[in-house]
Amino acid sequence: MEINYEMDTDLALEAGECLTKKGETVDGISLKEEEAEGGKVRITKVEIQNEDGAKRMGKPMGRYITLESLLLRGEEGKEACASVLADYIEQLLPGKWKRILAVGLGNRELTVDSLGPKVVDNLFMTYHHTGDGLCGLAPGVMAQTGMETADIVKGIVGEIRPDAVIVVDALAARSIHRLGTTIQLTDTGIAPGSGVGNHRSSLTRESLGIPVVAIGVPMIVKAATIAYDTLSAVLQILQMEHSSKETGEKIAAFSPEEQYELIQELLTPEAGTLCVTPKDIDELVYCIGETISEGINMAVYP
Amino acid sequence: MEINYEMDTDLALEAGECLTKKGETVDGISLKEEEAEGGKVRITKVEIQNEDGAKRMGKPMGRYITLESLLLRGEEGKEACASVLADYIEQLLPGKWKRILAVGLGNRELTVDSLGPKVVDNLFMTYHHTGDGLCGLAPGVMAQTGMETADIVKGIVGEIRPDAVIVVDALAARSIHRLGTTIQLTDTGIAPGSGVGNHRSSLTRESLGIPVVAIGVPMIVKAATIAYDTLSAVLQILQMEHSSKETGEKIAAFSPEEQYELIQELLTPEAGTLCVTPKDIDELVYCIGETISEGINMAVYP
Amino acid sequence: MEINYEMDTDLALEAGECLTKKGETVDGISLKEEEAEGGKVRITKVEIQNEDGAKRMGKPMGRYITLESLLLRGEEGKEACASVLADYIEQLLPGKWKRILAVGLGNRELTVDSLGPKVVDNLFMTYHHTGDGLCGLAPGVMAQTGMETADIVKGIVGEIRPDAVIVVDALAARSIHRLGTTIQLTDTGIAPGSGVGNHRSSLTRESLGIPVVAIGVPMIVKAATIAYDTLSAVLQILQMEHSSKETGEKIAAFSPEEQYELIQELLTPEAGTLCVTPKDIDELVYCIGETISEGINMAVYP
Amino acid sequence: MEINYEMDTDLALEAGECLTKKGETVDGISLKEEEAEGGKVRITKVEIQNEDGAKRMGKPMGRYITLESLLLRGEEGKEACASVLADYIEQLLPGKWKRILAVGLGNRELTVDSLGPKVVDNLFMTYHHTGDGLCGLAPGVMAQTGMETADIVKGIVGEIRPDAVIVVDALAARSIHRLGTTIQLTDTGIAPGSGVGNHRSSLTRESLGIPVVAIGVPMIVKAATIAYDTLSAVLQILQMEHSSKETGEKIAAFSPEEQYELIQELLTPEAGTLCVTPKDIDELVYCIGETISEGINMAVYP
Repeated sequence: MEINYEMDTDLALEAGECLTKKGETVDGISLKEEEAEGGKVRITKVEIQNEDGAKRMGKPMGRYITLESLLLRGEEGKEACASVLADYIEQLLPGKWKRILAVGLGNRELTVDSLGPKVVDNLFMTYHHTGDGLCGLAPGVMAQTGMETADIVKGIVGEIRPDAVIVVDALAARSIHRLGTTIQLTDTGIAPGSGVGNHRSSLTRESLGIPVVAIGVPMIVKAATIAYDTLSAVLQILQMEHSSKETGEKIAAFSPEEQYELIQELLTPEAGTLCVTPKDIDELVYCIGETISEGINMAVYP
Repeated sequence: MEINYEMDTDLALEAGECLTKKGETVDGISLKEEEAEGGKVRITKVEIQNEDGAKRMGKPMGRYITLESLLLRGEEGKEACASVLADYIEQLLPGKWKRILAVGLGNRELTVDSLGPKVVDNLFMTYHHTGDGLCGLAPGVMAQTGMETADIVKGIVGEIRPDAVIVVDALAARSIHRLGTTIQLTDTGIAPGSGVGNHRSSLTRESLGIPVVAIGVPMIVKAATIAYDTLSAVLQILQMEHSSKETGEKIAAFSPEEQYELIQELLTPEAGTLCVTPKDIDELVYCIGETISEGINMAVYP
Repeated sequence: MEINYEMDTDLALEAGECLTKKGETVDGISLKEEEAEGGKVRITKVEIQNEDGAKRMGKPMGRYITLESLLLRGEEGKEACASVLADYIEQLLPGKWKRILAVGLGNRELTVDSLGPKVVDNLFMTYHHTGDGLCGLAPGVMAQTGMETADIVKGIVGEIRPDAVIVVDALAARSIHRLGTTIQLTDTGIAPGSGVGNHRSSLTRESLGIPVVAIGVPMIVKAATIAYDTLSAVLQILQMEHSSKETGEKIAAFSPEEQYELIQELLTPEAGTLCVTPKDIDELVYCIGETISEGINMAVYP
Repeated sequence: MEINYEMDTDLALEAGECLTKKGETVDGISLKEEEAEGGKVRITKVEIQNEDGAKRMGKPMGRYITLESLLLRGEEGKEACASVLADYIEQLLPGKWKRILAVGLGNRELTVDSLGPKVVDNLFMTYHHTGDGLCGLAPGVMAQTGMETADIVKGIVGEIRPDAVIVVDALAARSIHRLGTTIQLTDTGIAPGSGVGNHRSSLTRESLGIPVVAIGVPMIVKAATIAYDTLSAVLQILQMEHSSKETGEKIAAFSPEEQYELIQELLTPEAGTLCVTPKDIDELVYCIGETISEGINMAVYP
């Protein structure tokens, strides 16, 4: 099956940018921008309002909130970011929810995929004491547990009866600028086949029967994406130069299919297991993990 | 509440020895010894057959199998021990069980309590591929998850519908000679309040509705036990020496209550959080964990 | 060789208490007490002033400063303790020292022995940038490196030419009350055969040619010590009771040699590798390690 | 300063391929191929014989041996690969060397850079027992120690007086096919500014006065390289197609400078800190680390 490289991202923001770039205005997709912390945190709200929008975006209907800030990479801005994060968690989970189950997706043994477990490790659990507040776990990925993560969560939800679920996961982005600088929140939960580890079965309001908020941070860019972007840039430049000389026909003949094949040729067969990631990914996961934990703690225990 | 120091052990073998030492023969307790691997592994089978036996032993009715071997501490005897372990797992789970849920109890962040998670990490999971064989997880302890571990397991059992559960945990022994040299298997599951972390709620055939085999290895001796044993030894020697001189009355006057108070005085208030453990506990957990994983793998996939 | 259980401690404070308990006043040993942080930190300064004192204490001549505080176990008092620690580091390293080599002794793979490496991990190194301030490393123990740690340090001192060395190590105490509540500083450096891992060769002003300050925290009590203390307490009580009835002669006949043999009997042969340690030792090392790092950073960069 | 993307590799093999691709035959560079383990391990020997060759290759004069095998990624071929590795270590360190200092370069906290420490952790050290055989350490990187690694090693060499030094490090390759499938050995030691972490100062026969063998494994490809390769492939295809239509002049006008700028534009400013790496890098480092340790052990203790 062919991959749509342009839309191969876990971020609704990037899928939206991709459509916008092409000058498309899509009925059923709304996009708003805000700022927080004196401009240091940029917030983009994407809402996919109907099935047509969902199809074009390659993402389910619902709200997607993206926080972007260079503060995320350092120690200093931690508290500010956590506070902004808490505000938007509350926007996605309004009303009276008292008992929250937090689920850290991913594999704690693979650094790029360990954000979810790290976050759950730092949450302040009170359900066992008070019957309310946070409880949670990091069950591990399917290759570790031999079970669909969705089945594990469904079982626990049935026994504990929380009011809502918060899932945390590492994401794949298209742009290297977003590695470790972006947090996405969505009320659509988790869709199958996304995430760093592709380990996710469906964790949604439909499958669990209660609201699900998913929090994710891009930790990798797929190596194929870098190749695709280079290709696009080269073609664009060539086309411009050729156009001016009116010899551009041949270039235009690079169909999407040819582009796809070219990239496959360059990367096969390791493409699927390779990723672009910051060298200091270990520190990044630690630092951002603490911020997200703090944000969830602040949202649940205001 | 007063602790019965003599019986303060997770090992049925030690509780049994304690009764035997006193010359008691208890109706309702049977004890058999075997050997394996040319005498290198000593096997003791304790069966508690009625309520009276259960009361005296401070343990629920059922079968307890103890494997003792110095081989457990090293790399060489690993395969032999795993093979013996597999045999006895099969004795406790006879018949046709095809789908097994393995649960690693304990806290992977505290070395003395990390055996369960380590074992589950090394199991060969196949349920997600074949619908049969092993699946499992290490949910973490209540302080980490905010949930009773029993609730988590119940939920998953309800969703996955395994034929049996194997739980693995680190235990507390009375004798320092048993640290890292002994494996206990039992079909009684896990009783509340035992284990290194005291983190266990009931995981039994009654609570889960399917057979439960518990596998445990002593990783700590409580510091209070060392004090108690020293006290006992001193009193015994004094008594012998005095008896020979017929001036032993005063010694006999050390009642169990007085002994208890003496120990409390020596250790309070840290007693509860202190444990005696080998300095190389990190390596020991790693090494024995691999042996148990291998034993479970061999039992499930013969 | 017989061990002197009473004096089998890395803390000069405990060796001093042992002499004092016996009512000995030893010429050549001075002892002063102070307080800091409004009484929350107790400071004891022991100075061993001559060879006679050194012999009685089983420690080399020099200054020993002990900080005791329950604050050390938690997050809250961290900064206060670090600040007090910094003050006393400066007392032991007066004058103009600009370039400090920090050495974290111990094995980072064994939790009870990992304090030194943890501390060095959190130091703020500047020597490579400025030619001054801190540099340092955690070379690992002899079993890991195949080299005497003293040889490694000597080589680096010869190349880097620091003004002084700070070594950090985990210690063995006699009293369980001191586990994770006490920091010892001394200008005598490190003597062979002490410490948790017994891995230390001599790191002193004599061997390195520059001032050496050693910072240590008790992380274990030897299991033998618990047995010895119980024995002592029992004998004391018996003796009091018997004395009152004037039948105490037999008890007094427990010579030190007999006591030694009794303990050996109780613990042999695992005694040497067993230790009493808090169950949450992993967290304790992390927490105290950060305090000491902070204290050293504050002392070097005021 | 402009980077020569084509030659931006730590592998002499790749630098050689790059020259060969262009059809250059360089006097002063010899290249031989061999096989081992029934064709499962491919061996390439590059020798840079004079200064002209060194300049063209961007590497110092000396011998470079590359072992390539898919066996390196799995458990099965471990022993075979270790044995071949041992053979070639002996070729580079002929004669009577009895005492070897092993140095694991890199940062054990950053997975992509942790190969060196992992290897040293698994070596069998005997120098402290016998005065011969292996000793070694992983000193950490300059940002951790505050010291040039070369200074640390020089100091230890001066104190221990080994006959030779073996350094192990993670490398950067150009081709993603070489990640975790290639081991390079060289008798040229370590040159400044290479390696994953760029943390290396010179460790060579000249600087240490004794033979130095460097063993390295590519763990990352720089993100910039992927972009460059895509660009090259596109240009090549375009040129072929256009040439056939005799309109290829414009394409040829992409000078190396223009290519460089294009890549900078695509990646700036994160390029320097991004790397392409397998998602399962944690496992890969563990697995290959064990193979190299085993190879060194076999070479030193035949």
